[in-house]
Amino acid sequence: MALGVALIGTGFMGKCHAMAWRNVATVFGGTPPRLQVLADAADAGAMAAQFGFQSGTDDWQAAVDDPAVDVVSITTPNALHRPMADAALRAGKHVWLEKPMSLTLADAQAMADLATAHPGQVTLLGYNYLRSPAFQAARDLIASGAIGRPRAFRGVYDEDYSADPDLPWSWRMTHAGGGLGALGDLGCHLVSVMIALMGPVAEVTALTDIAVPQRPSPDGPRQVENEDSALALIRFASGAQGSFATSRVAHGRKCRLQWEVHGSEGSLVFDQEHMNALWVHRAGEAGFTRHLTGPDQPDFAAFCPAPGHNFGFNEQKVVECRDLIRAIGGGTPCGPGFAEGLAIETIIHAMAASDGRAIRLEELAHEDA
Amino acid sequence: MALGVALIGTGFMGKCHAMAWRNVATVFGGTPPRLQVLADAADAGAMAAQFGFQSGTDDWQAAVDDPAVDVVSITTPNALHRPMADAALRAGKHVWLEKPMSLTLADAQAMADLATAHPGQVTLLGYNYLRSPAFQAARDLIASGAIGRPRAFRGVYDEDYSADPDLPWSWRMTHAGGGLGALGDLGCHLVSVMIALMGPVAEVTALTDIAVPQRPSPDGPRQVENEDSALALIRFASGAQGSFATSRVAHGRKCRLQWEVHGSEGSLVFDQEHMNALWVHRAGEAGFTRHLTGPDQPDFAAFCPAPGHNFGFNEQKVVECRDLIRAIGGGTPCGPGFAEGLAIETIIHAMAASDGRAIRLEELAHEDA
Amino acid sequence: MALGVALIGTGFMGKCHAMAWRNVATVFGGTPPRLQVLADAADAGAMAAQFGFQSGTDDWQAAVDDPAVDVVSITTPNALHRPMADAALRAGKHVWLEKPMSLTLADAQAMADLATAHPGQVTLLGYNYLRSPAFQAARDLIASGAIGRPRAFRGVYDEDYSADPDLPWSWRMTHAGGGLGALGDLGCHLVSVMIALMGPVAEVTALTDIAVPQRPSPDGPRQVENEDSALALIRFASGAQGSFATSRVAHGRKCRLQWEVHGSEGSLVFDQEHMNALWVHRAGEAGFTRHLTGPDQPDFAAFCPAPGHNFGFNEQKVVECRDLIRAIGGGTPCGPGFAEGLAIETIIHAMAASDGRAIRLEELAHEDA
Amino acid sequence: MALGVALIGTGFMGKCHAMAWRNVATVFGGTPPRLQVLADAADAGAMAAQFGFQSGTDDWQAAVDDPAVDVVSITTPNALHRPMADAALRAGKHVWLEKPMSLTLADAQAMADLATAHPGQVTLLGYNYLRSPAFQAARDLIASGAIGRPRAFRGVYDEDYSADPDLPWSWRMTHAGGGLGALGDLGCHLVSVMIALMGPVAEVTALTDIAVPQRPSPDGPRQVENEDSALALIRFASGAQGSFATSRVAHGRKCRLQWEVHGSEGSLVFDQEHMNALWVHRAGEAGFTRHLTGPDQPDFAAFCPAPGHNFGFNEQKVVECRDLIRAIGGGTPCGPGFAEGLAIETIIHAMAASDGRAIRLEELAHEDA
Repeated sequence: MALGVALIGTGFMGKCHAMAWRNVATVFGGTPPRLQVLADAADAGAMAAQFGFQSGTDDWQAAVDDPAVDVVSITTPNALHRPMADAALRAGKHVWLEKPMSLTLADAQAMADLATAHPGQVTLLGYNYLRSPAFQAARDLIASGAIGRPRAFRGVYDEDYSADPDLPWSWRMTHAGGGLGALGDLGCHLVSVMIALMGPVAEVTALTDIAVPQRPSPDGPRQVENEDSALALIRFASGAQGSFATSRVAHGRKCRLQWEVHGSEGSLVFDQEHMNALWVHRAGEAGFTRHLTGPDQPDFAAFCPAPGHNFGFNEQKVVECRDLIRAIGGGTPCGPGFAEGLAIETIIHAMAASDGRAIRLEELAHEDA
Repeated sequence: MALGVALIGTGFMGKCHAMAWRNVATVFGGTPPRLQVLADAADAGAMAAQFGFQSGTDDWQAAVDDPAVDVVSITTPNALHRPMADAALRAGKHVWLEKPMSLTLADAQAMADLATAHPGQVTLLGYNYLRSPAFQAARDLIASGAIGRPRAFRGVYDEDYSADPDLPWSWRMTHAGGGLGALGDLGCHLVSVMIALMGPVAEVTALTDIAVPQRPSPDGPRQVENEDSALALIRFASGAQGSFATSRVAHGRKCRLQWEVHGSEGSLVFDQEHMNALWVHRAGEAGFTRHLTGPDQPDFAAFCPAPGHNFGFNEQKVVECRDLIRAIGGGTPCGPGFAEGLAIETIIHAMAASDGRAIRLEELAHEDA
Repeated sequence: MALGVALIGTGFMGKCHAMAWRNVATVFGGTPPRLQVLADAADAGAMAAQFGFQSGTDDWQAAVDDPAVDVVSITTPNALHRPMADAALRAGKHVWLEKPMSLTLADAQAMADLATAHPGQVTLLGYNYLRSPAFQAARDLIASGAIGRPRAFRGVYDEDYSADPDLPWSWRMTHAGGGLGALGDLGCHLVSVMIALMGPVAEVTALTDIAVPQRPSPDGPRQVENEDSALALIRFASGAQGSFATSRVAHGRKCRLQWEVHGSEGSLVFDQEHMNALWVHRAGEAGFTRHLTGPDQPDFAAFCPAPGHNFGFNEQKVVECRDLIRAIGGGTPCGPGFAEGLAIETIIHAMAASDGRAIRLEELAHEDA
Repeated sequence: MALGVALIGTGFMGKCHAMAWRNVATVFGGTPPRLQVLADAADAGAMAAQFGFQSGTDDWQAAVDDPAVDVVSITTPNALHRPMADAALRAGKHVWLEKPMSLTLADAQAMADLATAHPGQVTLLGYNYLRSPAFQAARDLIASGAIGRPRAFRGVYDEDYSADPDLPWSWRMTHAGGGLGALGDLGCHLVSVMIALMGPVAEVTALTDIAVPQRPSPDGPRQVENEDSALALIRFASGAQGSFATSRVAHGRKCRLQWEVHGSEGSLVFDQEHMNALWVHRAGEAGFTRHLTGPDQPDFAAFCPAPGHNFGFNEQKVVECRDLIRAIGGGTPCGPGFAEGLAIETIIHAMAASDGRAIRLEELAHEDA
């Protein structure tokens, strides 16, 4: 039977979810979902028509409560994540939520607890970059032992959307409005990738920086509260070590989610700005091999049988949507759900709080308890 | 009022058309098309359900004739292009046809003539690579004079799908079954790009090669009839010159549609294997600048507001679909239609026939007349 | 016993020869050559001191005739090549000459004939790019069959030293003063590489262009006589085919000597602008492997035991010098000597004369005879 | 008057110094140095002949004391650096020493003190990578304000010379024999680059790892004592922050000295494996521009007038040699001398000792005092 879908939000990620819901069955087969209702503060009817939803509403609670709705896509600003996700879980719905879960770790904890209390409902967080064919191929290569034991990780996620010092102040730059800064926008993505490749984190030591402490506003200069950039050292539970860096003020970087894994028998290198190339080196080979995405990698073939033809950002979301549908259908578990999301956000909050002090993650878990 | 769509074929390009039809309004707005009927030789009902079409049929003629159908997407093997396109035009329908138009130039001519005889119906050929944001940005840069007068073109389109000498013989390797070889599969794409950037071609001189003259078949070795690769010198009507090369036996190349334009005041360089980077050099600058696709380029923003996040192959087709809808709606002309397609195919057939002899395109046109 | 060296010219290539002579024994061992005399039209004494030659003279004939001189390095403008090389050969000296041999094919023929008449004297032409470790590795890979039978060649050599339309007219742009244009400066290098990788050329068909027909001079605009760019189709004696392009007006290109070889079992790709990377693909591998230069490649280890540390342009000349010394010492033959140089120049002159007509090289040889 | 040179050592760096001494005047003009004496434990006479030195000796002290010697090049294993440098300084000679200065910080301190006590003698350490045209251009761009105020640094220096777990144990892997591990071999180079671009370091927090704790030896497995890799967070005195990583066990990396600087108005990116490209982005530009080395950059033109022709690793040393000669000649100061070298080594020793604890450099200086 077709899955009934409610979508809340029609911005960058709202449209991306809509495209995914519309194409998931076309790409992967199975019963196409029923696009039941779209909720947004304004123009919901027009957007519902554009996105192919049966109806639009400005009452998100009504959309969540609609008995024809099985799953809720939440793509609103971070401050609204908790009330909407809570409502959806309480209404018995599956939840597909954009990251980060919430503005504060306490909220994330409460959300994870609520999800745990509804074990029959699937939660999935929008960590897009886990779904690209190149990333999935990298994860599989490591799992297969192709590069031996992972010894070291180096990762950055840099963009430049706040690099201009004249960019006006916004509520997103406050703790109350935006939560964390670069760590919340970008850093959590890098953490999601890092732990998927390297396993759990045992300890972090981090520095943060506000590169532009004051920004112009109509009321004169105002203070930026959350970090423009962060750097961290990582000890993994496996004993491996890693370096970690993220910035929203790195001029010229657009989606520089770049990482490498050094294993005992090879290395992998990737850069999301060219998300269709995975660089692989195995001990004894003459150098790194550029592996373009293609049908020999996970999930690529469903989109295109021809290698080197380029997978796109939005298509990652179709894979994510397929994983969600499979999990709802009783099959394969998918993640990161809220529990794993809490682990990711615990790490970025530890980084934000570290100020050069080593923080052991298990102690933090105990403190929280 | 919603446009009624029939789709014929569910392979690589059939699915790609389906995704485009499903998402074009989500991405660009406007009334979503009505996915009326899907035709395929087998499993048409199941595929219609998967692709979200209202019905499926194994009778393509019926789909074309369906009065609720306004436009027909034709994605079948090349030998079927002419009968289907002819039928659709005669039934008063708009036609969206994958390239090349047909196996022979005579067929292409007849199709173009028929399209001319139905001036109120739009024809559009699936030259995907004309729709990527980087390509469109390149074309706009040249049109704006950013690199001065184009003096020279260098272009290749290489893949390796037939590189393995042990790849079995197939009917696609015959004139009767496949028409041209690399020129028909790949070369016509490169011609489409070349003339969009450089203007009309005046003369070509070409060599072709069959790198693997015989291939295994159940009946023993059989002859390959169409070219594995072709090389050409180009004289453009503008006086500029170009080099042109295409191969289906270039080991390691997956979608190497690589070109550069040398202008009197700068240069552009592009490679479809990294379709999200356009390299721009203007006289006086220190080197080439890598311009990642982003919302400052045509059509990117409708898919994603964030630069560097990667446009995908299939999304080119959504842009193409939007152009088709705009043209049908009475607005902007779009191309290449059948007349322009004939010009492209005239060029590749001239290359196939040249054997080192210079062929002037206008003479060819006269001969044809 | 130490080889006595005369060097004529102290410009770009003069200094490069001097560095090579000074370092060849340091790098490769053997008896250091004796830097006997440096000849230049002006400042010969000062330059001799700077370059470490025992004496300087403004009389190149005297340098050539000096009985202590065994070998003459000729690095003067092309119009002087023939008289100097002839004099050196007639004086019984070995000759190391920068390319091209001369302004006209007739001169090149005469020089080759004279060299043939002095079989005991080594001639070597300065085709630097044949001596880089990456190129040598490529040639060895092909020879070893690593990529199977070479089926196709694609090569360009583009620079932008004349790209600016306001660049003043110079005598180098005339037939009498400069001989060929881009073909003489750049194209001959590309031919040298092409035939070393692919074997002899059977036929060429070429176009040439003068992108900037008139250039400013103190006497008003003057005509440019030799080509700014050339394009060619190549038939190799082996049956393989190739495309060939060269330009001195390609904005942004600095030393874009880029080629690829498609073999029946793999491909090689190289770009002199990153001369320390050779890209290798063998059938069945996931993509191209970037092989950085290192001690596993020919001649690198003598300069540096550490891979990835970058070989430089000037160091190519040290390898060339070592090859010359070995040949003089009675050992390994080295090339291209004057006979091979004539073959190279026959090809570029055929390209210059082709104007779209196929020219068979053996016929040309017969015409010459 | 010509500078008298003694060279101690004929390995990787000994040959590199020899090439530099031989070519420095050829490249940059000035009086060629007099290559007086070469010292090595074995074959000194033969190596002196090969390298063009007047004599060879197995008595390095005699070479240092030779009254015809003005400057001593020391290229021996690290444990010999201090006695040789001390002897040279005490004998009144200038000293050109390969990095690091010594095995222990105490030795480095003593060497710096001795150099301070001989103010008329120049000391220079072999931090090659400071001399490449691309690096010098980067430093000049930052100094000129081209990218505004440097806000952040990311740097790695990875190689794979110890990546193979089966590589036998060696004395270089002990504190007594090799001093530090990756930090001493590679990390100090990265520090030299980092402080040249970003200014002084205020605080470091680091982790180190021994990826392969035991290695085979004829006597059975033996313990590796010094670090295979290190990671650090950096606080610069300017307030900027940086991340730092180095490894000798990074499979596939050959000379991956890769760094980027994020400024308030632009960014620079560099990778020593392609040392001829500097990537520059200024706010407002469409992306990063690849600036190939060329005569518009410092010191390139003296080697080659043609851009894009590739500077080599060994040529960095010729620039270093020129700087040394200029400093000795009473002119421009050059560095890093022993005092600056001590600062660099203080940083790597602080990293080695940190174990996750923040170490303020000025406190360390006080502790030392």
